[in-house]
Amino acid sequence: MVDKPKFNTALHEKDGVNQPESFSASSIANITKLRRKQPTATELVQGILNGNKTALSRAITLVESTNPSHLEKATNVINQCLPHANKSVRIGITGVPGVGKSTFIEAFGKHLTGTGRKVAVLAVDPSSSMSHGSILGDKTRMEELVKDENAYIRPSASGDTLGGVARKTREAIILCEACGFDTIIIETVGVGQSETAVHSMVDFFLLLKIAGAGDELQGIKRGIMEMADLIVINKADGDNIKKAKLAKTEFNRALHLFPAKNSGWQPKVTTCSAINHDGIADVWQIVSEYFEMAKGNHYFNAKRAEQNSYWLTETINEQLKSSFYTREGIAPLLEQYKKAVQNNELSPFAAAQFLLEKYFSK
Amino acid sequence: MVDKPKFNTALHEKDGVNQPESFSASSIANITKLRRKQPTATELVQGILNGNKTALSRAITLVESTNPSHLEKATNVINQCLPHANKSVRIGITGVPGVGKSTFIEAFGKHLTGTGRKVAVLAVDPSSSMSHGSILGDKTRMEELVKDENAYIRPSASGDTLGGVARKTREAIILCEACGFDTIIIETVGVGQSETAVHSMVDFFLLLKIAGAGDELQGIKRGIMEMADLIVINKADGDNIKKAKLAKTEFNRALHLFPAKNSGWQPKVTTCSAINHDGIADVWQIVSEYFEMAKGNHYFNAKRAEQNSYWLTETINEQLKSSFYTREGIAPLLEQYKKAVQNNELSPFAAAQFLLEKYFSK
Repeated sequence: MVDKPKFNTALHEKDGVNQPESFSASSIANITKLRRKQPTATELVQGILNGNKTALSRAITLVESTNPSHLEKATNVINQCLPHANKSVRIGITGVPGVGKSTFIEAFGKHLTGTGRKVAVLAVDPSSSMSHGSILGDKTRMEELVKDENAYIRPSASGDTLGGVARKTREAIILCEACGFDTIIIETVGVGQSETAVHSMVDFFLLLKIAGAGDELQGIKRGIMEMADLIVINKADGDNIKKAKLAKTEFNRALHLFPAKNSGWQPKVTTCSAINHDGIADVWQIVSEYFEMAKGNHYFNAKRAEQNSYWLTETINEQLKSSFYTREGIAPLLEQYKKAVQNNELSPFAAAQFLLEKYFSK
Repeated sequence: MVDKPKFNTALHEKDGVNQPESFSASSIANITKLRRKQPTATELVQGILNGNKTALSRAITLVESTNPSHLEKATNVINQCLPHANKSVRIGITGVPGVGKSTFIEAFGKHLTGTGRKVAVLAVDPSSSMSHGSILGDKTRMEELVKDENAYIRPSASGDTLGGVARKTREAIILCEACGFDTIIIETVGVGQSETAVHSMVDFFLLLKIAGAGDELQGIKRGIMEMADLIVINKADGDNIKKAKLAKTEFNRALHLFPAKNSGWQPKVTTCSAINHDGIADVWQIVSEYFEMAKGNHYFNAKRAEQNSYWLTETINEQLKSSFYTREGIAPLLEQYKKAVQNNELSPFAAAQFLLEKYFSK
């Protein structure tokens, strides 16, 4: 860049001298245009309804923003998109690191776009330190899908609290649906608290496993198996095929010991080799059977209505807690009382009573 | 009773005339004595520490009282008993109606008192309409145990909310322990929300089942099987023995598919015939093995400390919710917004935000 005197009035400007490149009018115009082009809520909604992925990404970024001034605009976008949402199937996919989630989702997603579906992949991973980075975000793990015109991949929303991440993901689902995606895949890693949250925002819950589950699979949280509508045993290839088939029999037997699901659906088990694209069509076949059944017996809509109610009360409850636990002076008192309670010096109920009096007296 | 004029002064009273029986001095004295004898907190605590079951029952009644004026005294009693509590093992027992819970607890309890233990049986059953009265309370179902000097049976605390019943049960446990009971059995019926609460107040969780589980057992809540430290297949007698053994093999296989427990304990399965007192000693043998292990690896105390913390935050969270949902004007608004949210007219988060603003603005 050339150093030159600055003139504050146009009188000093010489005619016929071109501005140096770094000051080029077109660059400035571009910047100004970009700044000016922060789209309005209605423009974003228009873009989304037209199937524009850039508008979709911008709207999701807005929803994810922690800047309080963005909240109103985000709510506005969501409320305008709501009437156009809800026309998809939502599938939760979980499994501990090492089962091949990314490979599976890539193969599954490609199969779906191949049949004309539009697939959006989102991730819930509030505790990314626990998942050792195995959760998507890292788009390079889905090389094929990320290039697919009919697919949209969005890494996990940042945020420390599960409640926050859950809200952002729920709203991202609405935006993706309004954008025309008819199959929403929510990926999560089966080691944290996030599975219950994901289970509460999807229609179908798929648990990915591998055969010969040794210690590497013991990390999965208790209770997750009972949530599954389908267990897929991945890496059923080469020497693994026999083991995978045996695992399928065992899981099938175990699933029959569980009580029946409200949906009336008997959870299934199947095997696949995501890397060889073997068995992927069967997975979709089973998922489709579920949706046919659940839409037929009206469980599908009933569950969605129930999930909406759940998120309403869940959000209220979370915020009530947040108001208490972040109130000035509560945290140190809580620590103190927690210790007394753990040492059996005070009953938990007496301690709670005292802390609540402090909170409500202000 | 004889009608006779009332005299307001002693001058009118005739010497040598006895009062009619209905006015007998001893009756009046008895009533006065009873009224006066409402024991103080310290008297109750003394009685409890002396192993007096009447004092124990009175203290539990005090803890269960919904009269706000009793709360302070109840807290006082609890706090004085706390240093003498916590020296027991706490066992949760669940199973759907029909598995023979009462018969099992009677046989199990008698076995324990026979080995010199002191057994208290409490019940958690906030939704007694759901359990069809199968839960104890009905002491006649445990004829032998109720007559046993070393046993104490207390029916379920009344109360509509699980939170309330849980608090009362937790405090009743403390009182029973201070009274010298070294084995606390908490009975619950495996169809409601109460199992998680019971699981959070016991050291060991026992699931009672019967073999050939048809529809009658499908009522058990999902997730309960994964909580169990021991599954006991009851009614393993007569023609049922073969079926029970088969069920044992199947459950054993299924339990091995579950992830390991934090305690390091591998859940077990056994069979018994409570009515014939067969296999009851084996059940206690397994329970004892668990306690030996859990006390050895310090899981036992760590879990109790964690449970205390849990009940502290749980109580706070429950009361925060209660304050919101019972606030005047919130209930009708909530209904209205819930409907809008269920019909996808409004996002759950936007609705929650609005309701919370109403709540906090007052």
